[in-house]
Amino acid sequence: MSSALRRSLFLCRPLCFPSRRLMSTAMQRPAIQPVSRYFEQPPKSILIVNKMRTPPVILAINALLEHIHATYPEVRVFHEDRPDIPHGAEVWHPPKHQIDLVVTLGGDGTILHASSLFSSGAVPPVLSFSMGTLGFLLPFHIDDFARALESVFHGKATILNRMRLAATFFTSNLAKKTNESNDWQVMNEIALHRGSSPHLNTIDIYVDGQHLTEAVSDGLIVSTATGSTAYSLSAGGPIVHPSLSALVLTPICPRSLSFRPLVFPSSSSITLRIGDRSRAPAGVSMDGRTSHVLQPGDSVTVQTSPYPVPCINRSSISDDQSEAEYQKAQGAGPGKEDDWVRDINNLLQYNATFRSKALLRHSRT
Amino acid sequence: MSSALRRSLFLCRPLCFPSRRLMSTAMQRPAIQPVSRYFEQPPKSILIVNKMRTPPVILAINALLEHIHATYPEVRVFHEDRPDIPHGAEVWHPPKHQIDLVVTLGGDGTILHASSLFSSGAVPPVLSFSMGTLGFLLPFHIDDFARALESVFHGKATILNRMRLAATFFTSNLAKKTNESNDWQVMNEIALHRGSSPHLNTIDIYVDGQHLTEAVSDGLIVSTATGSTAYSLSAGGPIVHPSLSALVLTPICPRSLSFRPLVFPSSSSITLRIGDRSRAPAGVSMDGRTSHVLQPGDSVTVQTSPYPVPCINRSSISDDQSEAEYQKAQGAGPGKEDDWVRDINNLLQYNATFRSKALLRHSRT
Amino acid sequence: MSSALRRSLFLCRPLCFPSRRLMSTAMQRPAIQPVSRYFEQPPKSILIVNKMRTPPVILAINALLEHIHATYPEVRVFHEDRPDIPHGAEVWHPPKHQIDLVVTLGGDGTILHASSLFSSGAVPPVLSFSMGTLGFLLPFHIDDFARALESVFHGKATILNRMRLAATFFTSNLAKKTNESNDWQVMNEIALHRGSSPHLNTIDIYVDGQHLTEAVSDGLIVSTATGSTAYSLSAGGPIVHPSLSALVLTPICPRSLSFRPLVFPSSSSITLRIGDRSRAPAGVSMDGRTSHVLQPGDSVTVQTSPYPVPCINRSSISDDQSEAEYQKAQGAGPGKEDDWVRDINNLLQYNATFRSKALLRHSRT
Amino acid sequence: MSSALRRSLFLCRPLCFPSRRLMSTAMQRPAIQPVSRYFEQPPKSILIVNKMRTPPVILAINALLEHIHATYPEVRVFHEDRPDIPHGAEVWHPPKHQIDLVVTLGGDGTILHASSLFSSGAVPPVLSFSMGTLGFLLPFHIDDFARALESVFHGKATILNRMRLAATFFTSNLAKKTNESNDWQVMNEIALHRGSSPHLNTIDIYVDGQHLTEAVSDGLIVSTATGSTAYSLSAGGPIVHPSLSALVLTPICPRSLSFRPLVFPSSSSITLRIGDRSRAPAGVSMDGRTSHVLQPGDSVTVQTSPYPVPCINRSSISDDQSEAEYQKAQGAGPGKEDDWVRDINNLLQYNATFRSKALLRHSRT
Ligand SMILES: NC(=O)C1=CN([C@@H]2O[C@H](COP(=O)(O)OP(=O)(O)OC[C@H]3O[C@@H](n4cnc5c(N)ncnc54)[C@H](O)[C@@H]3O)[C@@H](O)[C@H]2O)C=CC1
Ligand SMILES: NC(=O)C1=CN([C@@H]2O[C@H](COP(=O)(O)OP(=O)(O)OC[C@H]3O[C@@H](n4cnc5c(N)ncnc54)[C@H](O)[C@@H]3O)[C@@H](O)[C@H]2O)C=CC1
Ligand SMILES: NC(=O)C1=CN([C@@H]2O[C@H](COP(=O)(O)OP(=O)(O)OC[C@H]3O[C@@H](n4cnc5c(N)ncnc54)[C@H](O)[C@@H]3O)[C@@H](O)[C@H]2O)C=CC1
Ligand SMILES: NC(=O)C1=CN([C@@H]2O[C@H](COP(=O)(O)OP(=O)(O)OC[C@H]3O[C@@H](n4cnc5c(N)ncnc54)[C@H](O)[C@@H]3O)[C@@H](O)[C@H]2O)C=CC1
Repeated sequence: MSSALRRSLFLCRPLCFPSRRLMSTAMQRPAIQPVSRYFEQPPKSILIVNKMRTPPVILAINALLEHIHATYPEVRVFHEDRPDIPHGAEVWHPPKHQIDLVVTLGGDGTILHASSLFSSGAVPPVLSFSMGTLGFLLPFHIDDFARALESVFHGKATILNRMRLAATFFTSNLAKKTNESNDWQVMNEIALHRGSSPHLNTIDIYVDGQHLTEAVSDGLIVSTATGSTAYSLSAGGPIVHPSLSALVLTPICPRSLSFRPLVFPSSSSITLRIGDRSRAPAGVSMDGRTSHVLQPGDSVTVQTSPYPVPCINRSSISDDQSEAEYQKAQGAGPGKEDDWVRDINNLLQYNATFRSKALLRHSRT
Repeated sequence: MSSALRRSLFLCRPLCFPSRRLMSTAMQRPAIQPVSRYFEQPPKSILIVNKMRTPPVILAINALLEHIHATYPEVRVFHEDRPDIPHGAEVWHPPKHQIDLVVTLGGDGTILHASSLFSSGAVPPVLSFSMGTLGFLLPFHIDDFARALESVFHGKATILNRMRLAATFFTSNLAKKTNESNDWQVMNEIALHRGSSPHLNTIDIYVDGQHLTEAVSDGLIVSTATGSTAYSLSAGGPIVHPSLSALVLTPICPRSLSFRPLVFPSSSSITLRIGDRSRAPAGVSMDGRTSHVLQPGDSVTVQTSPYPVPCINRSSISDDQSEAEYQKAQGAGPGKEDDWVRDINNLLQYNATFRSKALLRHSRT
Repeated sequence: MSSALRRSLFLCRPLCFPSRRLMSTAMQRPAIQPVSRYFEQPPKSILIVNKMRTPPVILAINALLEHIHATYPEVRVFHEDRPDIPHGAEVWHPPKHQIDLVVTLGGDGTILHASSLFSSGAVPPVLSFSMGTLGFLLPFHIDDFARALESVFHGKATILNRMRLAATFFTSNLAKKTNESNDWQVMNEIALHRGSSPHLNTIDIYVDGQHLTEAVSDGLIVSTATGSTAYSLSAGGPIVHPSLSALVLTPICPRSLSFRPLVFPSSSSITLRIGDRSRAPAGVSMDGRTSHVLQPGDSVTVQTSPYPVPCINRSSISDDQSEAEYQKAQGAGPGKEDDWVRDINNLLQYNATFRSKALLRHSRT
Repeated sequence: MSSALRRSLFLCRPLCFPSRRLMSTAMQRPAIQPVSRYFEQPPKSILIVNKMRTPPVILAINALLEHIHATYPEVRVFHEDRPDIPHGAEVWHPPKHQIDLVVTLGGDGTILHASSLFSSGAVPPVLSFSMGTLGFLLPFHIDDFARALESVFHGKATILNRMRLAATFFTSNLAKKTNESNDWQVMNEIALHRGSSPHLNTIDIYVDGQHLTEAVSDGLIVSTATGSTAYSLSAGGPIVHPSLSALVLTPICPRSLSFRPLVFPSSSSITLRIGDRSRAPAGVSMDGRTSHVLQPGDSVTVQTSPYPVPCINRSSISDDQSEAEYQKAQGAGPGKEDDWVRDINNLLQYNATFRSKALLRHSRT
């Protein structure tokens, strides 16, 4: 900084100390977001979560169970109480059996399902394996399960706390609905949609108690940063880095052409109220699960949940040699690997100047 | 919370304490963002900023000067050193004369200009008057200047710290460019654009040192939340609440159809590097001022600036009776008025089901 | 074609052979689109169509009937067979009573309803009155009914033939579904939507028998130019001039970010087939009426219908003096008034630089 | 029209009078669009067009020339008068040497360049070879040149007449500008852009003489269907089938959020006039070539050109056995191959549910 500039900066006297306080929070560019942290003691109980029981999933679960029993013999392994409980796992009875680690096998929907198993309270750390597909929510390939578990048991795992949303439903006379979904916490989004009604619905939007606008549309999505790459993205919303504490409000096919997606601080409280003369009711979807239907006059208030989902990061195993090789091969820049950047990179590359990619597939006529 | 739920919550043992720390930051839903604060002592010096000298502006400045000299006789009033310096104001010589309060008269561009006068350091609180147009950055109507000044001098003003961005420019061999714009801080955005070159440019995007994607486009915008309603919005970006500390990266006419606007935490560092084989260079615009041209190999790194612009809020005068009336008339909900919600409300209403608005203008054929 | 339909088609007398002039070539820049033509003989029967029976509609219908009986005593007036048949109108028995002119009173939905009354064959010319709202499909204000009827009876009316779409439904073994909606013709669109299913559906799109792409989305819209300002616009589609013979294919919230709206010549045949492994079925909406549900394997083929809706234009009364005055007041350029341009103008003006419009509503704080 | 131009127009012999078949009506669902036609007599002169002289292009031109001289010895081969004229080709002197067939080698830009060589009159049929990249405008792979030429010389080639646009420029007092670009015909688009001006421009849009709206934006694009996959697509426009005779008007970063892309019949005349108080002028780009700058008050009128570009289709060689095999391998449906559908298919597949494609690239961590 030139001395002239330093002086001109100095001119701004103490009274404008607002900027000072701000510097310590938003402005000082904090080294770490409140999103990465290490485990402190090895897990004593593991919950295995899967949705489908396809042959690859069955094989993977068996291999996983065998490995756990052999390597960490003191650990108890649980599974949801379903007919297909795998051999070597105990049936999980929620209030009785504490869970220290959740392991999911499947697609993004499997993590959403794991989240829903703890939908009304805190979630243990989640270690997610893909069965081959790459996912925004799936940091590990199933082939790496041994290394991934090792990083967890040796306290080397890092965590991304994925924010969740909590919803409270009200009837038109503002009585709280006695609805089980009042306690659900969601990772992706709460979506209101006209469903199979042929008509548009009319929804009043309030932010922190103030009326923002009246939306005439197919519906509205209140999404987390995590959910910004799910339904909200399809509806035209922006891609939000998961370490940003924010709410995204995205309209679904709005009549108003000027209704653009809105991004709010996670401290905001968003209320959606079905207009009294709305031509259609609005079905509620929470992370893709249908919950119930809001009639004209009914409303829902969405806020940040106190219970995020602690997701174990791919970087947990990234200091290994193989990772270094991977990075070299991919030409990744210096610095700690960020799973999300890699995922977005994959997403965006897939269309970077579509012409050059068409090339890959080009076959002479 | 039901007791069953409380127990299930309890199951999650200390090792998963990551969520705990998070609760104190993002999750506890802090009552106030680091964006509102009161003045502590009355200003002793005021800088009046205007761009145009149209008759309404001249009249307003004269009335303002007269009012200040009569009501706050000890206050010195300054003006930029231009031929049109108003009667009753002193010429401002920046390092010598400290400024305690900036008063702007004009459109949004006038605040951007005020920000640029302090482009390399801290900015005194800014009180902005519109000349009749309503603006996202213009909380006060010129007719209210007496009340607005009173709220400032009586320590009742509240402030929204609007984040700024700082840019550092590098040549292709990574030497820092000795360019004055290296010190500029911007309120809206830093935009790279092919300008009058007929060809697309190719820009590599790095986030915190990692390669995100290669963009083939007309250009790229890195915007603040404040700037999200400016150029970024026209290019398809989301509307971001100004109290959210975030950076928005919006592509301008990208060839890749999957390149959607991205929102990052304000702690991110974004580097844009003109590809070595880019067919076009990229001109740099900072808050709408043309700065210089980046050639293939050149780059710019954008980060949050430590010097926000403390903007005095409309809510500073909102406890007055007239405001209460205004709210009643407008049907605003309970709770403190948020300037931004009102602005967005105006913006969105203007197209809410365009049919009903057409009505206003409908004249029988 | 059933004989009833053939007859109803026949009702539309030679005078409406509008398509002949089209025979110039696209490249020769024809002076006039094949969309405007005059009546040749005065109508002998009128069908009045309304959806709601609100007091203004009742009053308007009474005034209209009185005027018709007094001015054109030889004309018979019909009404749908509903409990609320207005005094002075006869019950309409479709195959028996030929209709020479349809008069609608209400919103856009009323014309869609009129179209559906002739959904499987030719439609008589339609004269549409708004009850105060301006509409894309509503050229006339109810106050102008006398002048509008006069222009029709004196052969001065001009017509815009609004294209319709015909749909044929097939089961998975390609048997034609014996579904009444097989005969429906639509003015706006045929929309497929997952409805209240929480899952995305997978739809294969074929154009003229060739596979275009597989869409994973909430659904798909095949729209006419007329419908381009209805649902398709909300879903992100372009605005298409109604005199352009084109089909618009617009995806609803597609997972693929590169799936942009597509515009095809009206000669194209578009087949949408629910993928065999689609996670959701697709409900069919035709001009906003729910028809039936397509299961995985089912398909629908959409083509241009041979039966457009001949809509009487506002320009039919535009050579009057009052119109000239209107034009002068509005600053319209030289040349024949085009209803659509005026409507789009209204639509677009409503947001032209939103700032200047905010002005209208600006009230000092 | 200058006599030189009239002659060059004349060069295009009757065989390419393609537009006659259009004369069916829109409503009758014509079996074939006026876009496919056969050659009638073998070409006697060929113009080879290339932009770059990279080694693959040089090799290809040599092989091509050798093949032509050996197989069609009576044919004369021409090349633009540039230093790099290939051996075996004569220098082309436009008014003197008639051209019966244009052969391009390179990317899409090469066809745009070929079009510009006949920018003020009729264009001979164009046979375009890609050097490996697949293009919307590049039906043939260079390896297929022998088969492609054979289909032309044996009268089996089919043609897609790609519409062009003609522009007329006016000064503010409506005098026609004496500008060479007045005679240019473009295949993709005419684009107006603020260029390196930091300010938005204000442009009044007139359609067929009527004022449509005032656009405050970075600029405006008037595109053909062909150009709909070029700049217009990047700016948010729809994808339009090239056999549809339509004009697309797409705004570039408009301030107005409701300004959506508009599609007009090709018979429309669109006038863009720089507003008298526009803060920026507008540079004109025609198919990516910078032409000149329009100052406030200046205007341009865009209409369909009488001179399309007759492009030889891939289907010209599609009845061959190898093509049948290709189709089988690709799983193409029954029916004639449509180059465009295949291109769009490639474009869209590249992002169909981006997750499944990410798979391709997935490498275990
Ligand atoms: N039109 C759309 O895009 C719709 C999307 N959804 C999304 O589906 C989710 C439910 O997922 P499933 O139960 O698996 O249903 P599903 O099996 O129908 O899959 C939905 C798709 O979304 C992907 N996905 C889920 N969460 C994601 C995230 N955070 N980021 C990126 N991609 C994500 C999944 O991988 C899958 O491809 C909902 O939370 C909602 O976000 C639901 C309805 C419509
Ligand atoms: N296509 C576009 O939308 C473009 C927008 N701009 C914007 O113009 C700004 C410079 O403004 P001026 O010097 O006044 O130039 P200007 O006089 O050309 O005005 C730009 C317009 O943007 C509005 N604006 C500025 N900041 C805004 C904000 N934060 N939120 C909402 N509206 C805002 C102004 O009121 C004015 O209507 C740049 O920072 C850039 O954001 C610049 C170029 C193109
Ligand atoms: N998200 C959306 O935008 C949706 C739109 N729709 C549209 O509603 C239509 C049915 O209309 P109604 O029975 O009146 O239902 P409705 O009473 O629910 O009204 C739909 C709205 O669309 C308007 N509209 C209808 N046709 C139009 C056109 N061609 N151009 C411009 N605006 C138009 C109407 O004026 C009304 O504002 C459907 O054909 C469909 O296009 C239906 C469902 C969702
Ligand atoms: N932001 C953007 O997307 C911009 C696009 N352009 C386009 O570039 C064209 C000029 O092309 P070049 O001289 O080759 O310049 P260029 O070498 O800069 O290439 C432009 C790109 O557009 C592609 N392209 C050209 N015409 C196309 C079409 N009809 N459909 C699909 N892709 C097409 C080319 O293959 C190339 O990838 C202009 O006519 C304009 O359409 C020009 C400026 C900006």
